[in-house]
Amino acid sequence: MKVSEIGEFGLIERLAAKVAQPVGGDVIVGIGDDAAVWRSGDRVVVATTDTLVEGVHFLPNLAPWRDVGWKALAVNVSDIAAMGGRPTFALVTLAVPASSRVSDLEELYEGLGQCAEAYGVSVVGGDIVSAPQLSITVALLGDAVMDRGDPLLLRRDGAREGDAIAVTGKLGGSAGGLRALKAGTLVEDPRVRAHLHPQPSLEAAAAAVEAGLRCAIDVSDGLLQDVGHICKMSGVSAVVRADELPVDPDLRDAYPDDALHLAAAGGEDYELVLVGERDRIDRVAETVVSPLTVIGEIVARTEPLVSLVDERGEAMSMPDAGWDHLRE
Amino acid sequence: MKVSEIGEFGLIERLAAKVAQPVGGDVIVGIGDDAAVWRSGDRVVVATTDTLVEGVHFLPNLAPWRDVGWKALAVNVSDIAAMGGRPTFALVTLAVPASSRVSDLEELYEGLGQCAEAYGVSVVGGDIVSAPQLSITVALLGDAVMDRGDPLLLRRDGAREGDAIAVTGKLGGSAGGLRALKAGTLVEDPRVRAHLHPQPSLEAAAAAVEAGLRCAIDVSDGLLQDVGHICKMSGVSAVVRADELPVDPDLRDAYPDDALHLAAAGGEDYELVLVGERDRIDRVAETVVSPLTVIGEIVARTEPLVSLVDERGEAMSMPDAGWDHLRE
Repeated sequence: MKVSEIGEFGLIERLAAKVAQPVGGDVIVGIGDDAAVWRSGDRVVVATTDTLVEGVHFLPNLAPWRDVGWKALAVNVSDIAAMGGRPTFALVTLAVPASSRVSDLEELYEGLGQCAEAYGVSVVGGDIVSAPQLSITVALLGDAVMDRGDPLLLRRDGAREGDAIAVTGKLGGSAGGLRALKAGTLVEDPRVRAHLHPQPSLEAAAAAVEAGLRCAIDVSDGLLQDVGHICKMSGVSAVVRADELPVDPDLRDAYPDDALHLAAAGGEDYELVLVGERDRIDRVAETVVSPLTVIGEIVARTEPLVSLVDERGEAMSMPDAGWDHLRE
Repeated sequence: MKVSEIGEFGLIERLAAKVAQPVGGDVIVGIGDDAAVWRSGDRVVVATTDTLVEGVHFLPNLAPWRDVGWKALAVNVSDIAAMGGRPTFALVTLAVPASSRVSDLEELYEGLGQCAEAYGVSVVGGDIVSAPQLSITVALLGDAVMDRGDPLLLRRDGAREGDAIAVTGKLGGSAGGLRALKAGTLVEDPRVRAHLHPQPSLEAAAAAVEAGLRCAIDVSDGLLQDVGHICKMSGVSAVVRADELPVDPDLRDAYPDDALHLAAAGGEDYELVLVGERDRIDRVAETVVSPLTVIGEIVARTEPLVSLVDERGEAMSMPDAGWDHLRE
């Protein structure tokens, strides 16, 4: 059997079974959430890792190196935010062909350094290895707000029937930006920036923790798929209202026929999905600068796990609900 | 300028300059040692990451997948040991072509799981990405013994003039094993096991910390090059006596003409070099099961940083003193 037959999620399940430790002891959150969390003395460590591969996650001749470096760290910041954590230290692994241009790699690290500065992260180590293809892997560590010895976290398994579902910022900008980039739009165009230069909302994550919310995920695979991860881990289902989605207005102008699909399934927006009591979500909305939009509700477990509904409440069909680079 | 013109160490220097934070604040050890160390509440976090790339760090049709998985974690355990730390939790990133066989990857993770169990590590997260070439990246975290609020560490900058240099186990077995493997020796052969299945000495690291030693490095690039890293960071030089090196006896039998060279520069033995007062080193030798051999002394800074001398104290020439996959 080939990896392409079972895809990323099928492979994760099989491989995790070979190594994963059950939660318990010092482990608070293990495999299956945005980040792992374990106890260390009087604090916790929040840890995540993400990789960008040239030609798979970024286009070698289209994405400026500075943006690749920014994004390599930003996607990890987004995972820590989605856990309710605060990023602190990073290890950066660069795999490079010996024929790479040193100046390109310096630009890549400059972009990564800018992201580190923007989010208060210190790069304290890493590895550089020879490889036929360029890739960059960041392991990002963080901590969490502690409350009487326990961390306050935003977990995928924290959704309950009756909870509201909200999302920060705008959706679809990244997928639209990628399409524009491929069609020849300049990298300086604001639409393309959303794809190349995501800005995870640590502010909303902190406000959510402060408001007593306990469930979140970031929009990386695609909104519906990501909400599905929450449903799977929480044993619930979700209804998402298509007409409430904060679709990027530039996207509606550029691709009116596909805007909804790109917003619901495009992925890589690195916005934050927050789930919890409506009054707590309203409190977050009052606190944060970025817009926060209620887009649906958590309901009792049904099939499908996530329903996208129109203004009359009728289920809409959404083929191709997210990314799986490994599945054919 | 291409990466091949400046090599791994030249590239690290240039890229670290773009992102590295000065040591200070919570950072106790930053870029340039076997692992980074930072303060977190009443404890410290010790963190390292290492990558194995197919075709670069292991031979796709010669190394059993189980051994690749073991080694991917073991080389990181070696880094934590060389810092005097205790490994705890790991994040594992697998980059795979969609055409990979699932059963091969399951074997790889089984081997990794065996190493995790052997060294008390829990795999708590990671990432799986699509890539044209298979590689595996482990980020390994750990803690350290604390003494009145400060960690007891084995640092590269802890060598002082007059210190003894000792090394655990045997040298050259890995390089000899690689040569035997390429020549068709079976993977079950004990000589080949040293290359495929390194066993870092956490026991010696713990005993070294306990005995009050404060300086170590693991043998990854090659003994002389690794001792050179200590000299560079400590502002000293080293004299290593060729006739004292614990050359693997199998290596002497198999490759009598090259045994010394493979032991001094072969690399990947993942033994521990300990540096410090002779009586403390003797105390470690009495405690640990694996042999510990004194191989030289730290002297005042001279050129070259590391001298290999024969039984009469005459300097021997050692061309090609270690690995640099990126340099041509």
